[in-house]
Amino acid sequence: MDKTKIATCTAPVNIAVIKYWGKRDEELILPINSSLSVTLHQDQLKTTTTVATSRSFQEDRIWLNGKEEDITHPRLQSCLREIRRLARKRRNDSDPSLDLSHKVHICSVNNFPTAAGLASSAAGFACLVYTLARVFGVEGELSGIARQGSGSACRSMYGGFVQWIMGQKDDGKDSIAQQVEPETHWPELRILVLVASAERKPVGSTSGMQTSVQTSCLLKHRAECVVPGRMVEMIEAVRRRDFAGFAELTMKDSNQFHATCLDTYPPIFYLNSVSQQVINLVHRYNRHYGETRVTYTFDAGPNAVIFILQQHVPEFVQVVQHFFPPETNGGQFIKGLPVKSASLSGELKQAIGLEPMPKGISYIISTKAGPGPRVVEDPAQHLLGSDGLPKETV
Amino acid sequence: MDKTKIATCTAPVNIAVIKYWGKRDEELILPINSSLSVTLHQDQLKTTTTVATSRSFQEDRIWLNGKEEDITHPRLQSCLREIRRLARKRRNDSDPSLDLSHKVHICSVNNFPTAAGLASSAAGFACLVYTLARVFGVEGELSGIARQGSGSACRSMYGGFVQWIMGQKDDGKDSIAQQVEPETHWPELRILVLVASAERKPVGSTSGMQTSVQTSCLLKHRAECVVPGRMVEMIEAVRRRDFAGFAELTMKDSNQFHATCLDTYPPIFYLNSVSQQVINLVHRYNRHYGETRVTYTFDAGPNAVIFILQQHVPEFVQVVQHFFPPETNGGQFIKGLPVKSASLSGELKQAIGLEPMPKGISYIISTKAGPGPRVVEDPAQHLLGSDGLPKETV
Repeated sequence: MDKTKIATCTAPVNIAVIKYWGKRDEELILPINSSLSVTLHQDQLKTTTTVATSRSFQEDRIWLNGKEEDITHPRLQSCLREIRRLARKRRNDSDPSLDLSHKVHICSVNNFPTAAGLASSAAGFACLVYTLARVFGVEGELSGIARQGSGSACRSMYGGFVQWIMGQKDDGKDSIAQQVEPETHWPELRILVLVASAERKPVGSTSGMQTSVQTSCLLKHRAECVVPGRMVEMIEAVRRRDFAGFAELTMKDSNQFHATCLDTYPPIFYLNSVSQQVINLVHRYNRHYGETRVTYTFDAGPNAVIFILQQHVPEFVQVVQHFFPPETNGGQFIKGLPVKSASLSGELKQAIGLEPMPKGISYIISTKAGPGPRVVEDPAQHLLGSDGLPKETV
Repeated sequence: MDKTKIATCTAPVNIAVIKYWGKRDEELILPINSSLSVTLHQDQLKTTTTVATSRSFQEDRIWLNGKEEDITHPRLQSCLREIRRLARKRRNDSDPSLDLSHKVHICSVNNFPTAAGLASSAAGFACLVYTLARVFGVEGELSGIARQGSGSACRSMYGGFVQWIMGQKDDGKDSIAQQVEPETHWPELRILVLVASAERKPVGSTSGMQTSVQTSCLLKHRAECVVPGRMVEMIEAVRRRDFAGFAELTMKDSNQFHATCLDTYPPIFYLNSVSQQVINLVHRYNRHYGETRVTYTFDAGPNAVIFILQQHVPEFVQVVQHFFPPETNGGQFIKGLPVKSASLSGELKQAIGLEPMPKGISYIISTKAGPGPRVVEDPAQHLLGSDGLPKETV
């Protein structure tokens, strides 16, 4: 075997607080509105991808979470094509040993169960593009390529608070992600992912947003008239670390996104009874304290993502455990960043006054804002062996 | 006791297919958009009200479903005041024996449980106004008075298909109901009320719509830009007895109303998991047949109201029974108009393919479009005895 070029990188999941829903161009993945997200810390949730290229490879191949998948998927092909195109353009500066006609092997794993419904495609495509770029010696703006893999993947190319500017051009060149503030900007901010025990797989987001664009007149109004103002407001709230402003806008935007799903024909439901209970719980909790201490947001599934300042985490987690009593013989209920124990006043329980829903939430992932994609320098961490195939341990 | 004047009337429930949600004037009850409803048949759902007036009565009094209630309720007072005002104006033509200073006793009962969540206030205020008008010898347009008791009550003043024109005037004089087509217009149309076993009482519609008007920008857009076109379309579909057109618009409008509830802050949920399952069931049923045979609409609660042509009722009821297995020891599952039994193909069950939800629906009321308020001529039916108090049987 000739000299294989190989790189391994990791990339984060992100959660939108101003939601992306609907494309104006399906092929290029251009959105009907801008969006804004928080990048989650990779200590808790990340994708790791190894890309190798070698003269000896017969064809492009990809393995996801231990299973070989179809490399001809159009979105994978878009990312491969765009990276190779950039590499060709920048050839002069690049490694002369790199032959662009060589095939690639790609191997990717998540450190969290896909079943958790945590928008793994954003982290997946961000990691793919970042790692391909490394192998092909491509630098600079890459979010526009990640976008062509999965729209929200462009936001996973940066850490902290990230906006995806919708852009105006037909070729999508101006539809890219930008960091608003780095992950160090708001250290007190904590994030809890409440993983709901869903009964069934909801409608996928690609087909869901297509139907919404075609049928919901409320979505059109939202994209054109509501989101532009909210983007300005949200960026301001993040910059000022104004928790109440950030939190209220986050809840309103999540609710409005789900409202447009309901206005879709046939309607799409992502919020189930557990999600509704989480929403009611958060509003009653905030009402009890007379201030907005907790906020929720939901993507295309029933899991809640909670933002909360550090000092309120222990009590709020107790509240969640009380109103969603976990399975007693199940695994750990709280994963990720440790949460101190706290007591719960009878007064607070009574103020919330909901009927507990046993086993409604499987577990909580406790995390915070984190950095963008990273290169893994330790060669022992490569997911592909010297034969260009996934290592046994993958 | 001097000669008592007494009258007893009945009035129907109505269900909106273009929804009313939001007032532009709280006092006069003027809506932010027009709406359209179908009046349900009184054989299944009605309010009966007796009004008596007598020199011997010390004060205005009211009994609802056997319990004396507070007559000073502002909306009751509005109706009483407006009817007395009209009576005074038309005095010349009216019964000289009628003394407008006499107090009234009002007694009202529903032939259905209030707990069923069937918008009893519409039938109640329509019946109150109709009966008061009879006693006070007032004739002509009364829907504008019923509207001041409960907005949707104005639509219960007519049978069949009824629009409530929002009007433009500040004094509300042009905000009245009009019959679009009588109940005889579409004899094949059947209505099934699926009474969901709700766990908790949802947010009341009066406060719910106030919060929506204050906080939902999607509601504003709906009222101004969406509903006017839908009113025209819906009237056309009813006139032409175009079931698919009527049905699709009914579903879209119900979903959009609930979308605006979700866009409200804090959000309001009226659709629970049973409602969501009914919605999915209807869309899958229609998809199986490749045509729109069934439609749903939901008011401010989890009960579904289904419209369906007569020939499809038996099979659809079987479908409902299959996916919502009733309590085996409960009462009758189907009340009202008889429904023939039918068989259910394995193919249809499989095409729908939902997980059955035992006891999700308590019972079905089978009914059809019906006439407006009626005078009960038989004096034995009066709910007030000769002493002006509710009879024992009430």
